[in-house]
Amino acid sequence: MPLLKSWVTSANDADHPFPLNNLPYGVFSTNGTEERCGVAIGDSILDLAAAEEAGLVSVDDMPVFDVPYWNDFMDLGSEAWDALRARLTEILAEGSADKAVAEPLLVPMADATLHMPIVVSEYTDFYAGRNHAFNVGTMFRGPENALPPNWLHIPIGYNGRASSVVVSGTDIRRPWGQLKSPDQDLPAFMPCRRFDLELEMGAIVGTASDGPITVQEADDNIFGYVLLNDWSARDIQAWEYQPLGPFQAKSTATSISPWIVTKPALDAFRTDTPEREFELLDHLKDCGPMLYDIDLAVTLAPEGKEATTIARTNYKEMYYSAAQQLAHHTTAGTPMNVGDLLGSGTISGATKPERGSLLELSWGGKEPLTLDTGETRTFLEDGDTLTLTGAAKGDGYTIGFGTCTGTVLPALKDPYAR
Amino acid sequence: MPLLKSWVTSANDADHPFPLNNLPYGVFSTNGTEERCGVAIGDSILDLAAAEEAGLVSVDDMPVFDVPYWNDFMDLGSEAWDALRARLTEILAEGSADKAVAEPLLVPMADATLHMPIVVSEYTDFYAGRNHAFNVGTMFRGPENALPPNWLHIPIGYNGRASSVVVSGTDIRRPWGQLKSPDQDLPAFMPCRRFDLELEMGAIVGTASDGPITVQEADDNIFGYVLLNDWSARDIQAWEYQPLGPFQAKSTATSISPWIVTKPALDAFRTDTPEREFELLDHLKDCGPMLYDIDLAVTLAPEGKEATTIARTNYKEMYYSAAQQLAHHTTAGTPMNVGDLLGSGTISGATKPERGSLLELSWGGKEPLTLDTGETRTFLEDGDTLTLTGAAKGDGYTIGFGTCTGTVLPALKDPYAR
Repeated sequence: MPLLKSWVTSANDADHPFPLNNLPYGVFSTNGTEERCGVAIGDSILDLAAAEEAGLVSVDDMPVFDVPYWNDFMDLGSEAWDALRARLTEILAEGSADKAVAEPLLVPMADATLHMPIVVSEYTDFYAGRNHAFNVGTMFRGPENALPPNWLHIPIGYNGRASSVVVSGTDIRRPWGQLKSPDQDLPAFMPCRRFDLELEMGAIVGTASDGPITVQEADDNIFGYVLLNDWSARDIQAWEYQPLGPFQAKSTATSISPWIVTKPALDAFRTDTPEREFELLDHLKDCGPMLYDIDLAVTLAPEGKEATTIARTNYKEMYYSAAQQLAHHTTAGTPMNVGDLLGSGTISGATKPERGSLLELSWGGKEPLTLDTGETRTFLEDGDTLTLTGAAKGDGYTIGFGTCTGTVLPALKDPYAR
Repeated sequence: MPLLKSWVTSANDADHPFPLNNLPYGVFSTNGTEERCGVAIGDSILDLAAAEEAGLVSVDDMPVFDVPYWNDFMDLGSEAWDALRARLTEILAEGSADKAVAEPLLVPMADATLHMPIVVSEYTDFYAGRNHAFNVGTMFRGPENALPPNWLHIPIGYNGRASSVVVSGTDIRRPWGQLKSPDQDLPAFMPCRRFDLELEMGAIVGTASDGPITVQEADDNIFGYVLLNDWSARDIQAWEYQPLGPFQAKSTATSISPWIVTKPALDAFRTDTPEREFELLDHLKDCGPMLYDIDLAVTLAPEGKEATTIARTNYKEMYYSAAQQLAHHTTAGTPMNVGDLLGSGTISGATKPERGSLLELSWGGKEPLTLDTGETRTFLEDGDTLTLTGAAKGDGYTIGFGTCTGTVLPALKDPYAR
C-alpha cells in the first residue's frame, strides 16, 4: 500500500510519523479544556469528541469520545474499530467531501497536551526477547546457563503494577529501596544507584476474554501498540527478585507513548517470529506473522545537553509475539479485560549497539558508555532524559509511534518527610 | 469490651460471627433485585441502600450504598468510616429509637446472595508467613537454605491478577497449563495435577496513597480484612516460576470471603509480630501491634461427603503485618488505590496440623493426608469443596469472618473448543 494522501498536507511527507495510513488514537487537551479522544493526522489532531458532536463520526448510540480514555470505544468491538478507521480515512482523504466540516475540528499538535490514552486495567510485563534474556542470564549465571530451561517453551512474564503506568513526558523520580551489595552483611534503605530503562513495545487488549484463548484469538483481541519504557531499579531487583520475581524494582514507573498505533496501520509490516530451537506446543504455535518490523531507537540526553543515540533495534527481534504472550496469559483461565497492557520484554538485537537496556549496554556497569557529549554512563543519572522512538517504514510513508520520553528526577531527600 | 447487645437477637449469641461488635460490610442481592451494600447483623443483613434512601444513614451528598461495591464509601475516608460505624452501632443497639424504621430494612441472610464486596483495583500476594516459607524452602532447597537471604528483611511479594479474584462460593475450574516433570525431556500442555489451596488473610486498601508511606500510615489506610484462598497450581508453578516468579500458577482464581471485617471490629485482637532474628530497617519497623489474633481453619469435603478439618492456625503466625507489607509495597513510589487487595501469604503454624497448604500438609505429595471419610489426599481432587473460616474470640462474643468456600470443577476437556 502506498502513501494515502490527505488534505492535511503535513501528513503527506514520506517521513512524517502520522500519515493517513497511520491514524493513531490518543487523548489530548488544550489550554483549559477537558481531556478527550483524538486522532493524529500530520501536525494536527482531529478532535473526535467535537467530530462526534458534529455528527461527523458516529459509532454508538452513546457518545464515546468525550472521555479521557479509549476503553469505551475499544469495548465496542472490532466491527466498530474497522468502521471508525474506514470513516476517518474517508473524512481525512484528499478530496474528501467532509473537509469543510472537519477542518475546524483540527487542533495543532503543538498546542495540545497528550495524556494517558487508556485506563490501564492490569499491566503484565514479559521477558520474551531472546538476546536480552541471554545477555542478562549470561551476566548472572554464565553463557551456558543463560536461558532458563522454560524460556524456549513459554513466554516468561510477571504481573506488573498498573497504577505505575504513566504517559510519555511524565518525570520519573529515582526510587528508594532496600539494597544489599555483595560486600555488605546487611541491607540498607537508600536511593537506587542502578536505575535503568527497558526498551519495549506495549500491546493493548481491546477485547475481553474469559478462559483460554488461541493465538489467533489473542491477535484478534489486540487493539494496538505503543512504545513502552519499563524503568527498572537493578540494585533493588538484585536483592528482592528471588524467589518470587521483580516487585519494587519495577513499580516506580512504566512510561508509554501517547498514541496507540492500531493493528491495521501495522498490517503491512507483519513478520514471522524467529526460527525456533524447540517446536512450540500447539496452543502457542504461530498461526501467521504476528510480530512487526518496527525500527526502534533510544536516545539519552544529560540535563541541558544534546542527546546521544544509545541503542537501535527492531521489534522483530522478539522470540514471542504479543499474541503468543496473550494466549499464554490466558492458559490457566484468568479473565483478560479491555485496557490490559502487555509489555513485550526488553528488545535487544544481537550486537552491542542494539541492546535495549543500560544493564546490557554497560554489561552490568562494567563497560561504561561514552556519550556524544564525552560524558560516560553505566546507569541513569539525575537529569537524564530518555527518549524512545519507533517507526515502520512503508513505500513512501512512515508509520510512526511518536516518542516515549521521561526525565530522571533526583530521589527525595527523605521519602517520609510530611 | 464485652458483647454489645442488639435488638436483632440472633446477634447476641456469644458464638455468632456477626454481633453488634462486628458489623462487617458486604454486597448482596435477593431474588430479582440489584446488588447493593449491606451490613451483617446476626442472621440478617441491614439493607444500606434502603437505609440511605430512608434517611436512616447519610454519609455523603450522593448515595454511596446503592452500588455493588464498597469502593465509593471507602474513598470518603476514615472520618466517614468512623461515622458510619458509630451510626450503625446506634441504630442496631438494644433499645435503639431507630428500631421501628430499621427493622423492615433487614433481609434474612438465608434469602440473600452474597457478591464481591469491592472492585479489586490491583491484587498483590505476599509470602510473609515464616513457617510456610521455611517449609516450602526446605522442600525445594533443604532446611539450611530454606529462607532466601532477603526473607527476614523485607516482606517478599509479587503482583497477582486482580481479574482472577472471585467471591466465596464461586466454583473453581481446574486449570490447564504447561508442565514438565523432572523425568520428562520436554514440557506438555495438560490439566494441572497438583492443584492446591493457600490459607491467607486479605487486607483491603481503603485510602489511596502516592509515594512511600510509613507503617503507621499504611495501617491507617487499611479498611478491613477478609479470608483469602489463593488457589495454586503447583506443577505449573514448578516449571514457570524461575526467574520471574509465579504467573499462570496463580492466575486461575483467588477466592475471598464476602464480608469485610473492618479494623475497629478487630482492634481488641491486635497482637505484635513475632520476635525477629534481624532488626528491621526503620521504614519497616513495627510501631504498634498490627497483627491480629484470629483463629483460622480449613475443611476439605470430597464431593457429596462430610468435611474434614485439614488445618488450624492463627493469623498471628505471620512474620510481617499487612501494614508492613503495604508500607514496603510503596517504597519505590507506586501509587496505591482504593480497592487494592493484599494477600498475607500462606499462614502456617509450627506443627503439621497447622499448615495452610496441601503442598506442606502432604510434604510435596509424599505424605498423603487421610480424611475422616477414609479417603486420602495429596492435592485437590475434582469435586472437593474447601472452606476457610476465621474468628477472633472476645469476652462473650465472636468476631467472625463467615466462610470462604470453593468447589473444584474438573478441567475442561478441550480448553479451545468453541
